[in-house]
Amino acid sequence: MANEFDLIARYFEHQAVKRKDVPLAIGDDCALLEVPEGSQLAVSTDSLVAGTHFLAEADPAWVAHKALASNLSDLAAMGATPAWVSLALTMPKPDEAWLAGFCEGFFALAEYYNVQLVGGDTTKGPLSITLTVHGFIPKGKALTRSGAHSGDWIYVTGNLGDSAAGLALLLGQRTVDDPMLESILLERHHKAEPRILAGQALRGIASAALDISDGLISDLGHILQRSGVSAEIDVDKLPLSPELEAFEPERDKALQLALASGEEYELCFTVPEQNRGAVDIALAHSGVKATCIGQLRPGQGTRLVRDGQPLNWQLHGYDHFAE
Amino acid sequence: MANEFDLIARYFEHQAVKRKDVPLAIGDDCALLEVPEGSQLAVSTDSLVAGTHFLAEADPAWVAHKALASNLSDLAAMGATPAWVSLALTMPKPDEAWLAGFCEGFFALAEYYNVQLVGGDTTKGPLSITLTVHGFIPKGKALTRSGAHSGDWIYVTGNLGDSAAGLALLLGQRTVDDPMLESILLERHHKAEPRILAGQALRGIASAALDISDGLISDLGHILQRSGVSAEIDVDKLPLSPELEAFEPERDKALQLALASGEEYELCFTVPEQNRGAVDIALAHSGVKATCIGQLRPGQGTRLVRDGQPLNWQLHGYDHFAE
Repeated sequence: MANEFDLIARYFEHQAVKRKDVPLAIGDDCALLEVPEGSQLAVSTDSLVAGTHFLAEADPAWVAHKALASNLSDLAAMGATPAWVSLALTMPKPDEAWLAGFCEGFFALAEYYNVQLVGGDTTKGPLSITLTVHGFIPKGKALTRSGAHSGDWIYVTGNLGDSAAGLALLLGQRTVDDPMLESILLERHHKAEPRILAGQALRGIASAALDISDGLISDLGHILQRSGVSAEIDVDKLPLSPELEAFEPERDKALQLALASGEEYELCFTVPEQNRGAVDIALAHSGVKATCIGQLRPGQGTRLVRDGQPLNWQLHGYDHFAE
Repeated sequence: MANEFDLIARYFEHQAVKRKDVPLAIGDDCALLEVPEGSQLAVSTDSLVAGTHFLAEADPAWVAHKALASNLSDLAAMGATPAWVSLALTMPKPDEAWLAGFCEGFFALAEYYNVQLVGGDTTKGPLSITLTVHGFIPKGKALTRSGAHSGDWIYVTGNLGDSAAGLALLLGQRTVDDPMLESILLERHHKAEPRILAGQALRGIASAALDISDGLISDLGHILQRSGVSAEIDVDKLPLSPELEAFEPERDKALQLALASGEEYELCFTVPEQNRGAVDIALAHSGVKATCIGQLRPGQGTRLVRDGQPLNWQLHGYDHFAE
């Protein structure tokens, strides 16, 4: 039986990414790390628990991708450049096949963004993963949730709703006849990409930003609360993929999926009038489109509108402890 | 029913410690943090899982102390100055009484070391805690595991074995007649203190260091392996408290407890001959004693000796996955 230390050494000590700002990585009491001069450190922590955030029998490579992508997405939402991650892995027994799959998914994404695994902990218990990711951002350039003002325009990157459609297929709540469509939507759920380059491109342009992890309506609420404004969303502006429209031909239902879809990892951001012209140019090199879906107003809350008339849809974001 | 965000806001957003190097703490996608010029960042992650590292019914204030103390102890072992911590808390349901107790223990220790909680995650699932602690260390001054040489002397701070005695009492494996003795040993297990000041004082003096979390024999092995040396320990030099001697009057058994006791959070460090005179002076202001227990030699492994003669005791450190 492999012991704890063997496991860590075998699966986590060897990684292609070797950053110059990591004088000491795994294997000592702490990692030693160097932040570039003039940069602030952006840090975020996310836990994924089997049974709550993923199915225990899920492909471990997908689980790893989801764990790291959701964590990197928080860096993207601040406009930060990813650098390091620590991994706390709790598992019932040292399952080497699971670990091999997990590492494959984890290191593939880490390598893509040049993120080095610098430490962590491996413990016995119910399956769960906690990641703490670190990135850099030039001092004063971070995209927070509190910088938005009434009159700013509301944007989202990419399309919304595909992740929710993929989850419904995964859970067997829905089926589709077209196997290609099924595989695309499942992939959009399992392999959603953090918008790292888009976040960096929006430094100095967006007034506020966050990533959509609990659903647009729920997450946008955090910007509204922190910035002290309300939002008016034109539902017909919401960007839907052709695949979502094929999955859910009833348009209003597709739009409601787009408003509530979690784990999307698209960015929602706000832009002052004078910066609107810069958005498309800034995002051009990131390969990500952005769509204006509404505008901030004085007051509180989110109003959904169509043709200028209020809509009364009931929507809820994802909440782990809600019943 | 409180939702996830309410819980986080209510229990974790308010803390007495407000550091100037934390421009943005809890409540955004990431925390924003500033590392002093000329310093490296030391980072360590520890998970505590109910049923593996603590009893589910344990006092939550003790659990919080243990979680943070074990994490801070890793900073102490590098000679780092603590600064920030992130907390990932997974719990089956939002138990407010448990949270209140946990926060009390957590913030008491955090405040003592001026550590600010800068972020984290609250999720639903089996009870567990993962902390990632951050500290500063002047560039090039970290105490690693790999700097020891043959001929260096082996030291430990404080006394060894009290934590194991307290654990045996807690688990009902042993009893003692004296209630005062019982309460002292339980306290030594529950409230072991990280040797933060001692670690900092040893910068420039110790050649290698680590904290004793899995038992002296097991942990010292990491220094030996990383530094490519062997150790000779004079068991009669091991520092035992009067309480341990009362708990275990049979001397050899008390010494064996001292060699294997985990979660002690004392430091084990090595000192070149020319620095030996500086140890006591350096540690004087930290209020912690240090005891020389042996010397490093060429070769591999640890030899226990008494009066210069080898001993053949069988000892094992703590390993989560061992059977």
